[in-house]
Amino acid sequence: MPSIIFRPLDKSIPIHGPSNLLDLARSYDIPLKSTCGGKKICGKCKIIIEDSDAPLPAPSEHEIETFGDLTQKGYRLACETVLTERAIVRIPEESQSGRQVILTSGTHHPYPARLIPKVESYYVEVPPPVLVPLICDRERLANALAEAYGIKRLRIDPFALRKLPRALRSGHKGIFAVIRDRKELVDLHADGEKELLGMAFDIGTTTVVGYLMDLNSGEEISVQSALNPQISFGDDVISRISFCQDSPEGLDKLRASIVACLNQLIAAASAEAGIDPARIMEITVAGNTAMHHLFAGLDPRYLAMAPYPPVLQAAEDFKAKELGLNVAPSAYVHLLPLKAGFVGSDTIASILATGIHKSTIETLLIDLGTNGEIVLGNRDRLLCCSTAAGPAFEGGHIRFGMRAAAGAIERVNIDPVTFKVRVKTIHGERARGLCGSGIISAVAEMIRTGIISDKGGFNRGLATPRLRKGKYGSEFVLVSSSMTDVGEDITITEKDVSQLQMAKAAVYAGASLLNELGGRKKIERILLAGAGGNYVDPLDACTIDLFPGYKTATLTGVGNAAIHGACLALLNRNKRKEAERIARKMAYQELAALPRFQELFVENMVFKQAGGV
Amino acid sequence: MPSIIFRPLDKSIPIHGPSNLLDLARSYDIPLKSTCGGKKICGKCKIIIEDSDAPLPAPSEHEIETFGDLTQKGYRLACETVLTERAIVRIPEESQSGRQVILTSGTHHPYPARLIPKVESYYVEVPPPVLVPLICDRERLANALAEAYGIKRLRIDPFALRKLPRALRSGHKGIFAVIRDRKELVDLHADGEKELLGMAFDIGTTTVVGYLMDLNSGEEISVQSALNPQISFGDDVISRISFCQDSPEGLDKLRASIVACLNQLIAAASAEAGIDPARIMEITVAGNTAMHHLFAGLDPRYLAMAPYPPVLQAAEDFKAKELGLNVAPSAYVHLLPLKAGFVGSDTIASILATGIHKSTIETLLIDLGTNGEIVLGNRDRLLCCSTAAGPAFEGGHIRFGMRAAAGAIERVNIDPVTFKVRVKTIHGERARGLCGSGIISAVAEMIRTGIISDKGGFNRGLATPRLRKGKYGSEFVLVSSSMTDVGEDITITEKDVSQLQMAKAAVYAGASLLNELGGRKKIERILLAGAGGNYVDPLDACTIDLFPGYKTATLTGVGNAAIHGACLALLNRNKRKEAERIARKMAYQELAALPRFQELFVENMVFKQAGGV
Repeated sequence: MPSIIFRPLDKSIPIHGPSNLLDLARSYDIPLKSTCGGKKICGKCKIIIEDSDAPLPAPSEHEIETFGDLTQKGYRLACETVLTERAIVRIPEESQSGRQVILTSGTHHPYPARLIPKVESYYVEVPPPVLVPLICDRERLANALAEAYGIKRLRIDPFALRKLPRALRSGHKGIFAVIRDRKELVDLHADGEKELLGMAFDIGTTTVVGYLMDLNSGEEISVQSALNPQISFGDDVISRISFCQDSPEGLDKLRASIVACLNQLIAAASAEAGIDPARIMEITVAGNTAMHHLFAGLDPRYLAMAPYPPVLQAAEDFKAKELGLNVAPSAYVHLLPLKAGFVGSDTIASILATGIHKSTIETLLIDLGTNGEIVLGNRDRLLCCSTAAGPAFEGGHIRFGMRAAAGAIERVNIDPVTFKVRVKTIHGERARGLCGSGIISAVAEMIRTGIISDKGGFNRGLATPRLRKGKYGSEFVLVSSSMTDVGEDITITEKDVSQLQMAKAAVYAGASLLNELGGRKKIERILLAGAGGNYVDPLDACTIDLFPGYKTATLTGVGNAAIHGACLALLNRNKRKEAERIARKMAYQELAALPRFQELFVENMVFKQAGGV
Repeated sequence: MPSIIFRPLDKSIPIHGPSNLLDLARSYDIPLKSTCGGKKICGKCKIIIEDSDAPLPAPSEHEIETFGDLTQKGYRLACETVLTERAIVRIPEESQSGRQVILTSGTHHPYPARLIPKVESYYVEVPPPVLVPLICDRERLANALAEAYGIKRLRIDPFALRKLPRALRSGHKGIFAVIRDRKELVDLHADGEKELLGMAFDIGTTTVVGYLMDLNSGEEISVQSALNPQISFGDDVISRISFCQDSPEGLDKLRASIVACLNQLIAAASAEAGIDPARIMEITVAGNTAMHHLFAGLDPRYLAMAPYPPVLQAAEDFKAKELGLNVAPSAYVHLLPLKAGFVGSDTIASILATGIHKSTIETLLIDLGTNGEIVLGNRDRLLCCSTAAGPAFEGGHIRFGMRAAAGAIERVNIDPVTFKVRVKTIHGERARGLCGSGIISAVAEMIRTGIISDKGGFNRGLATPRLRKGKYGSEFVLVSSSMTDVGEDITITEKDVSQLQMAKAAVYAGASLLNELGGRKKIERILLAGAGGNYVDPLDACTIDLFPGYKTATLTGVGNAAIHGACLALLNRNKRKEAERIARKMAYQELAALPRFQELFVENMVFKQAGGV
């Protein structure tokens, strides 16, 4: 019996008599693109007959028009090609459905994703109505889709239903039905295939990031970010939860605030891309648990009360109109699953993006922040915890601490002999303060140059006027007032150093505890996630003893991995199931209750790297 | 093996050892009420042990408290009763789930309905959260419902989800979960079982009626009606469809207008009943196809173009918030199925209410109106058509025609010797014109007294000044100006008579045609539906030859059967499936295309009863 071999899959399919290549691919689940459903319209099902026992079939007019001379090299449309003898058929990259795309912008780490979005366009020709039997528009469409694509029991969103009578009478031969999950019609285009768009968000306590993506190509169309406007109701998660407790409309206000922010990003991305936001048909959202709850309108107060139960853990889909987002009203918003009150869907999304759950490498993933989320493990088991590091990593409770904004010092270099200081600020502006990575960098340099002892005290014997007694105790001058934008010397105080010690001890202890619980397996890889993590210098992190394992492990900043996880879930519906599995299988450890955590915390307050200096 | 016999079903169930009666009833699908799921709280599962081979089991404290001395007569709670020997157990009417209720108001015809609403309350106790394993509120609720009631894969509407964290922490032991179709949580009550309400609507071209019902008891709580405010955009269906065609916001305006009307009825019913409209959890709607489309926001323009296809035929559920109704935002609005552009869900609902589809009696159901919907058949087959009767039955195109409102003449009596006329007006007010039944009554009396010939002409030889030549041709004075509220004589003109002849000929021809298509079966019963139909005197209808079969059939006015069908669908979810089956199985005949209809129409322009007078 002759066979057709499909490349690059190298799948061999026996044929019985003349076989249409598109039908064959469909029957055997070969990922071959076709948006017109074999009506010989879309021209997407390009294949190349690389070898054949029989002569190449004569190209059709349509094929000659589409491929020109390439038809002589075997270029054909699968829907028009019928083979009877053994052949080797290549499906080029661009004709593969579910093909590989790469997420690039905003990070140095490309995240490959298969393109299998939740919403897809289906070309369909719907016969006009006749007197007998009289069949309504909805049923004629449903019947046509069932016949062409085997889609049964189709639900229809009112937005699409209301468009239906006009769309069927637009004068075109067929229409494009936009269907989610082969279950629900969410839109109709009478005007040929158009862009099918989606947007992914990461809602952070401080920053909100949104990616507008083309669901047909996997391309990033626009990347937008903004400060989370909820900051005006409280800088951190706990103060926002308090705001909900103290004010009866607190939750409504916070929800309205973040919804307005997302709408602003949607508008900005749409404007930049020159598209109608009503074409955005799917949204994914990652975020820490409090941000997730506030966005969904779920009371977050119990997140702050033991045992800190979330209202929702599993992924949940809401209609965009339900949440107040200005996209297609029939679009869904997919909230990624979360694990605990302080291990949110951003952590799950980061795992998804970095692939720890599929790797054999024992990996420590740390997201530095007020609540440092820590994940440890590999594909066999994952452990996680959240450690109350306090605000030091975000510049909080630090004399000259500030957010990572223009003018923030992010790197410090100290001459070991002269103690002269050079600083690098964000956007190169005059220094206004220190952001998280700046504080870490400053303290690390002060350790390396012997200014700070292992206990965190200043070496008062040092011969430099930069080390002095100031209003707030001992301090080291980083930038003198004339060079700053704040009218005074920017310094690091002894109190700042002990704030950082507590923060780093919390992270170290959390990670160590997970390592102990996991059987003290050797940590092979450390990934630093988060906006902060992106800029922390690995050497600095090691110098201040930020986490265990750094002596043997590779250390990499992975940037905002959460937004990439959200993008993956947007482009590839299977990734959503993967995220659910991660959330279900990962073990969560509550630290507050464990005496061993307290021991580890106290033990790791010192800077071991500083040695006996 | 001993058995328990459940009465009044007389179902015998074998038992193997000690058996709890509630468990037994559940396992064998005996319709026994229990809203607490066997937690011994609700006290709804009352049963009476009528006979028993063993002595009666000792009553529990709870049972003694509930039933007092009746415990000696075998009164027990099924959830607390364990039997080991043969017994006869009666489930009293009030403990039967799915028990019979009667729809009464607004008509003389009681419609019995089983009470099996789409939304039901489930009592559930949800364990508090613990640290390990940390399970979110949603999942703890879902698990508890799965365990107590076997409800799996529960969806949760955001309205209910947002109530969840507070409801679980209200301090009560359990909560009541309001679940639709055992699939979707739509509300939560932390405060004990409360009313569960629903509302049924019939949206007519002229009148809108709404029934507020208690879904726990099947009681009618409030009946409201209003003029359809769309009248200001056009009196009849066709003029409203034109309004949609002519104005780009026509559809939006008409939709907003009917939604406001329903909201007004919802507010009025809620106020009358003293309930919060947010407790209304389910809505059913019947209406003619154009009203259905306008309410759902579906472009109706194609209903007026051959082959007159509706956008939607099958029943469809919309969220109430989607349609803009001010009830629980999680409530669903169920639009009953329809058949054709001019055979709407009101006709299907009327069939449902009158039970033609389950009867052996060959029945003709007629809804008089601008479009007279006609149904003929029995449980074996149903035929339907719509006949363009014109507006005469609603007082349109009649010199003194008016809607059935205060002051409209609804009955006329003419002395056969003196030709003196007595009229009965709606609410007994001074005559302002004639409504549909008044026109029919007047013409019928004029036939009976020989004023009108079989061709519809006036008998000019009559010696009465009431018969005269007026501005608009020959006319017969019914009420002289001094007795009217319009400042002139109210008359019936020869033209009015011919308008009625055309209208009645259309109905007669439609019904005759269905009778011919159905094999000329003898019509045994004629039901006159609709607000108009309710008041047409059967004798008058016969006198003017309104329909075939009246010589042998019984003739009954069934009032607004459509609203009762909508109520049935509200109280009993199985009725919705029945409605779907009716819509699918009934054959629709388009009349416009049939020459035989034209023949019958012309043939039946005459009043046969008038004989040769």
